[in-house]
Amino acid sequence: DEKEEEELRQRFMAPPVTGLRELRRRRRELRSRMELLIMETQGEVCRALAALDPGASFAVDTWERKEGGGGISCVLQDGEVFEKAGVNVSVVFGLLSEEAARQMRSRGKSLKAKDGKLPFCAMGVSSVIHPKNPHVPTMHFNYRYFEIEEADGTKQWWFGGGTDLTPTYLNEEDAVHFHKTLKEACDKHDLKLYPKYKKWCDDYFFIKHRGERRGIGGIFFDDMDSPSKEEVFQFVKSCAKAVVPCYVPIVKRHCHDSFTPEEKLWQQLRRGRYVEFNLVYDRGTKFGLLTPGSRIESILMSLPLTARWEYMHMPPESSKEAEILEVLRNPKDWVH
Amino acid sequence: DEKEEEELRQRFMAPPVTGLRELRRRRRELRSRMELLIMETQGEVCRALAALDPGASFAVDTWERKEGGGGISCVLQDGEVFEKAGVNVSVVFGLLSEEAARQMRSRGKSLKAKDGKLPFCAMGVSSVIHPKNPHVPTMHFNYRYFEIEEADGTKQWWFGGGTDLTPTYLNEEDAVHFHKTLKEACDKHDLKLYPKYKKWCDDYFFIKHRGERRGIGGIFFDDMDSPSKEEVFQFVKSCAKAVVPCYVPIVKRHCHDSFTPEEKLWQQLRRGRYVEFNLVYDRGTKFGLLTPGSRIESILMSLPLTARWEYMHMPPESSKEAEILEVLRNPKDWVH
Repeated sequence: DEKEEEELRQRFMAPPVTGLRELRRRRRELRSRMELLIMETQGEVCRALAALDPGASFAVDTWERKEGGGGISCVLQDGEVFEKAGVNVSVVFGLLSEEAARQMRSRGKSLKAKDGKLPFCAMGVSSVIHPKNPHVPTMHFNYRYFEIEEADGTKQWWFGGGTDLTPTYLNEEDAVHFHKTLKEACDKHDLKLYPKYKKWCDDYFFIKHRGERRGIGGIFFDDMDSPSKEEVFQFVKSCAKAVVPCYVPIVKRHCHDSFTPEEKLWQQLRRGRYVEFNLVYDRGTKFGLLTPGSRIESILMSLPLTARWEYMHMPPESSKEAEILEVLRNPKDWVH
Repeated sequence: DEKEEEELRQRFMAPPVTGLRELRRRRRELRSRMELLIMETQGEVCRALAALDPGASFAVDTWERKEGGGGISCVLQDGEVFEKAGVNVSVVFGLLSEEAARQMRSRGKSLKAKDGKLPFCAMGVSSVIHPKNPHVPTMHFNYRYFEIEEADGTKQWWFGGGTDLTPTYLNEEDAVHFHKTLKEACDKHDLKLYPKYKKWCDDYFFIKHRGERRGIGGIFFDDMDSPSKEEVFQFVKSCAKAVVPCYVPIVKRHCHDSFTPEEKLWQQLRRGRYVEFNLVYDRGTKFGLLTPGSRIESILMSLPLTARWEYMHMPPESSKEAEILEVLRNPKDWVH
């Protein structure tokens, strides 16, 4: 038992928000299992990335939320391979703010509050990796669990998450590898999941005012509450375990590719679009900015180190820049 | 008459959206006078800025809006003095989108639509100037006029606008000059205006999640519909005429100041905050992104050429970076 605890401690980037003792005592509860999974995922991803960028290392910040809970932010900034890589864990609880409740209701949730109060618990691991080399794509993933207690004491719960890729230039081989790895993780649970969540991803990461998607997609889902808590958890676990095999081979393949100043500039313009999506549309970012006491630096860690906006930039026809734009405007199926 | 028309043509950056002939024919109507004022302001500001950056020049784009109206965008990019300077005129009309009507109602406007339709006309001049040198502040201004026709044929109308300054480093002399020039423009009309609109500006340009204002303010107002159309127009005219005397002396004073790479970096981080405000909070940007057929490149022209986000950047105590942050957190009165 002691040994097992010691092993966990070594795999985690910091002590979990809920004490390790407590988590192990309540190990049968889904909340505890999910917290262990997100801690484990944070450790796995950080170690895999650090191994790719030997000179750099993750700074680890633990933080508390006055209103309840806290988190662990791991950030690698200005490395050789990664410009900015962040992997966040947060476990927060308390009472839902009115604004947040309104947003959830607008998504069709019926939330019966007791004296206007809705106790909630939200936990998740989320990450955005911005590499330096324009031939290495940006990657984002997020897996989360949400519980709300209604007036009559019943609990609503759901999972959400996804993994998606944002290349500066299109590389078909990478796109196929990324989507294939995700599909395999999904297919173990239900063959309907990958096509459904692949489409949801293309729809979600849509920068409406540009008529473009943020990237070449992956999977995205929310409000997942069937077939059962256990089965959804197992699915989320498979997805979380797929992050490293999805992404690391792509980084290895391209992190030493040579590139031109023009390619770097195009990357910076695409980073600008990334900022536009995250600040204008991303629900997680909006929810975070609206939640009193949330840790802004951890939420905005998703923004790139640098970005650029040029007035009326338009890549020439048949260029490599136009090629990726075409795919962002008309998403493709990468695996069948 | 011909001569007068020729003179106007030479002062404008492009032919106005409503033909010059038409504008002169209806010269007594406020809509025409406002369109002439915004065209005149665009020309004045562009000429004043171009004179400060002799190697560069404004590219002029005229555009049409399928749903009605159009605009003229003047952009100077990557000059010696200015990194990105845009001065936009737009005159658009048609039917208010549902989303836009909802936003206006949420501001307390009662809009009685006929068969769900609300004919509107909106026109304005807006501008954001991002200089290269971190000792030259960013400046923004916008003056606009709005008309909506209700079900019974009555017209609601109002003016809005403002001019505000966003320095990277605090320079008290500049701050006082800027505010004093604005105060003088306001005081000609009503001594209550400057204090009221100075406070409104501090309140409006608040980046809530950071607890900071975007800059050191200026004036801001909206929904201004009294004492009378004529008087409000005259006030707006005084404000528009104050733009060049507010800003140009500050640019002249500092555009040859020497600066360090650290100062440039701090400027880039502040540009990141500028992007955060504009994409998360700015009502004009949001309205634009929601209005079908609006010209995205003209709206997002306000974004800087480059911006930067560092995780947990915190300037040392008593530094010049901490000095400006203090003023952004606790706005000061610059003139009494």
